[in-house]
Amino acid sequence: MKIQTITWHRGKIRIVDQTRLPARFCYIYLEDIVQVFRAIRTMQVRGAPALAAAAALGVVLSARKRRTKNIEALKSQIDKDIQYLAKARPTAINLFWGLERMRRVIDSDIYQTKEGLNNALLKEALNIIEEDKRVCRKIGREGARLVRNGDKILTICNAGLLATIDYGTALGVLYRAKKEGKDFVVFACETRPLLQGARLSCWELQRAGLDVTLICDSMAATLMQKRGINKIFVGADRIARNGDVANKIGTYNLAVLAKYHKIPFYVVAPLSSFDKNIKRGKDIPIEERPSFEITNLFFKKPITPKGIKVFNPAFDITPHNLITAIITEKGILQKTEKRGQSKFRKFDF
Amino acid sequence: MKIQTITWHRGKIRIVDQTRLPARFCYIYLEDIVQVFRAIRTMQVRGAPALAAAAALGVVLSARKRRTKNIEALKSQIDKDIQYLAKARPTAINLFWGLERMRRVIDSDIYQTKEGLNNALLKEALNIIEEDKRVCRKIGREGARLVRNGDKILTICNAGLLATIDYGTALGVLYRAKKEGKDFVVFACETRPLLQGARLSCWELQRAGLDVTLICDSMAATLMQKRGINKIFVGADRIARNGDVANKIGTYNLAVLAKYHKIPFYVVAPLSSFDKNIKRGKDIPIEERPSFEITNLFFKKPITPKGIKVFNPAFDITPHNLITAIITEKGILQKTEKRGQSKFRKFDF
Repeated sequence: MKIQTITWHRGKIRIVDQTRLPARFCYIYLEDIVQVFRAIRTMQVRGAPALAAAAALGVVLSARKRRTKNIEALKSQIDKDIQYLAKARPTAINLFWGLERMRRVIDSDIYQTKEGLNNALLKEALNIIEEDKRVCRKIGREGARLVRNGDKILTICNAGLLATIDYGTALGVLYRAKKEGKDFVVFACETRPLLQGARLSCWELQRAGLDVTLICDSMAATLMQKRGINKIFVGADRIARNGDVANKIGTYNLAVLAKYHKIPFYVVAPLSSFDKNIKRGKDIPIEERPSFEITNLFFKKPITPKGIKVFNPAFDITPHNLITAIITEKGILQKTEKRGQSKFRKFDF
Repeated sequence: MKIQTITWHRGKIRIVDQTRLPARFCYIYLEDIVQVFRAIRTMQVRGAPALAAAAALGVVLSARKRRTKNIEALKSQIDKDIQYLAKARPTAINLFWGLERMRRVIDSDIYQTKEGLNNALLKEALNIIEEDKRVCRKIGREGARLVRNGDKILTICNAGLLATIDYGTALGVLYRAKKEGKDFVVFACETRPLLQGARLSCWELQRAGLDVTLICDSMAATLMQKRGINKIFVGADRIARNGDVANKIGTYNLAVLAKYHKIPFYVVAPLSSFDKNIKRGKDIPIEERPSFEITNLFFKKPITPKGIKVFNPAFDITPHNLITAIITEKGILQKTEKRGQSKFRKFDF
C-alpha cells in the first residue's frame, strides 16, 4: 500500500492520524481550519515539510468556507485565517513558508472572482504537495551518495514519509540508499516524550524492509561506543543563516555525542526549512509543550508524583560547528573553515 | 514518615515495592530466596547498595529454611543459595560484595551449630544494613562540601534512599547540602526505560522538600546549554580499578555532555562499589534486559510495531577521564594527571 500523509480528497484534507500509529493506521478528514489547527497542535500531523502542506490546504478550506462574495473582504478573511494557522506551532519554519506561499496568491491582483481565487489557492497547495514529493526524492539521491555498505546509521524522531508527503528527508536518504542496493543497518532513537522514533520511524522503516533496531535516547552514547555507529542523519525544523539547526529535542544531544565519538553528523532538509530572516540558532523560537506529555504516558497513566515541575522543550538548537553537512535538494552543503570560522558553502542561502 | 527501603521484620524481609511508586507506596514481604531473587530481577528492590542488603538478608532466609541439622551439609546448601542469588543481576558489584560477606560467615569455623550460624548470619546482614546507613551519611557530608548556593544540579536514575537503606549516595549529598541550609535546584533525568528518575527520584526529592524539575533524558544537552547546569552527581553500580564507572544507562551520555559543556561530573558511591578484580570498565559485565521494557510501556500497551529489534543495555561505562571526582565515605577521590595519564588519588583502592 502506497501511503500519502496528506491528500486533498473531495473538498476535505485527508491525513494519516499519527497519534494512533503504530497500533492503528487510519485516515482522518479535516473540514475546517479549526480542525486543521487542532490536528497540527496535537501532532496528528507533524514533521516540518508536512506542516507546510497541511497549512496550505488549510488555507484552501478557509477560502471555501467563507460566504462573502466581495473579493477584498474574502481576501481579508483568509488573511486572518492564515494568521490563525500560523499560531498552531512556532518552531518549524515550513509552516510559515507554506502559509506565505498561499498569502502570495491572495495578495496577487490576478484573481478577482471567488472561484478564480479558490482554484488558484488549491492549485498552489497541490503544487506544494507535488514539489515536496520531487524535492524529497532529490534530497534522497543527494544523501544516498554518503551511504556505504556496512554503515551503521543512527537517526532520531521521524524525518520520514510521515513527516513529509510520501518519502521523507533523513529517512528518504535511507530509502534511496536501500533502493540503490546498499547494505546497512539503522538504529532509531525512541524520541521521548512523544516517541516518534519508536512509533513512527520504526513503523515505516520496518514496513520498507530496512534493518532497524530501537534504542532509548539515553543509549545513543553507549551505542556509539560499543556498536560503531558511523553516520547520523537527522531532519530539521528550521535552519538559521549561519547553519544552526532547530530540530526535535535530543538532536543537539546526538550532535555533541557525535563530535566526541568522531561520527559525521548530517542534517537533511529541503531549502524551505532555511530561514533567511534568522541569523543564529538562538534566535529561533523554541516551542515548550505541556508537562503532561512527560508526566502522563500517552496522556493517561501518571508516572510521576503529583505537582512535579517539568521542563519540556519540543526542539533544541544544534550549532553549525557540530554539523558535518546539510543535505538539500540542490546538493550537499559542506562546512568550510576560514580564519577559524566555519561556514556552509556550495551556494548562498 | 521515616522510610527504610529494606528491613528484617519478624523473620521476613520487608521491602518497599519500587515498581509501584509513585502511584502507590507499599511494603512487600519476602519469605524465601526465590522471592528475593525475583524481587531483585524485577527491580522491586534495586540500587547497588540496596542489593547488597537484600541479598545478605536472602542468605539469612536461606539458612533458616533449610531442614538439615548437619552443619557442613547446611553450609553447603547455603553456599548453593548464595550462588543462586548471585545470578539475579550481573552488573552491580554490591550484590556480590554483600553475598561475599555472608559467605565469610559460613566459611568461618566458629559456628558449629545451626542456631549459632543463623544468629551470626543475621548479625552480619544487619551489620551491612547499619553500615550502609552510616556510610551514606558520611558520603553525604563529603559530597555536600562541593554544593554551593545557587547550584543547578543534574542527576540520573535514582541514587537516593530507595537505592540504599535510608539515605542515598548521589541524592544523599543533596539531602545533606539541604540540611546545611544550602540553596540549590535539582533536575532529574526521567531515566528510560524504567523511569527511575521520574518515578523514584522525583518522588523522594519532592518528599524531602527539594526543588526538583523533571526532564526527558534527551533534554539534558539543551538544559546544559540553556539553563546553566553547573554540577552533575550520579551513583555507581561498579567501579573498576582505573576509575571507570558502570552506572545506569544514560550516565555515559551525561558524562560526554558534561565534558563538552565543561561541567564537573561527580560519581558518588560507597567503597563497596569498587571492584578490585576489574582493571578497566570494559571488563565489567553489562546486563541486557528484555526488549519489552522499551517496547511496552509498563509491560502493558505496546508502543512499537510488532517484532521490532531492540538494544536494551541496563548500564553503560563512563571512562575515568570523563569523571571529575569520585565521592566516597573515606573522602573525595580527585583525578590527577601524570605523564598524560589520569588517575584517581587520595588512597589506593
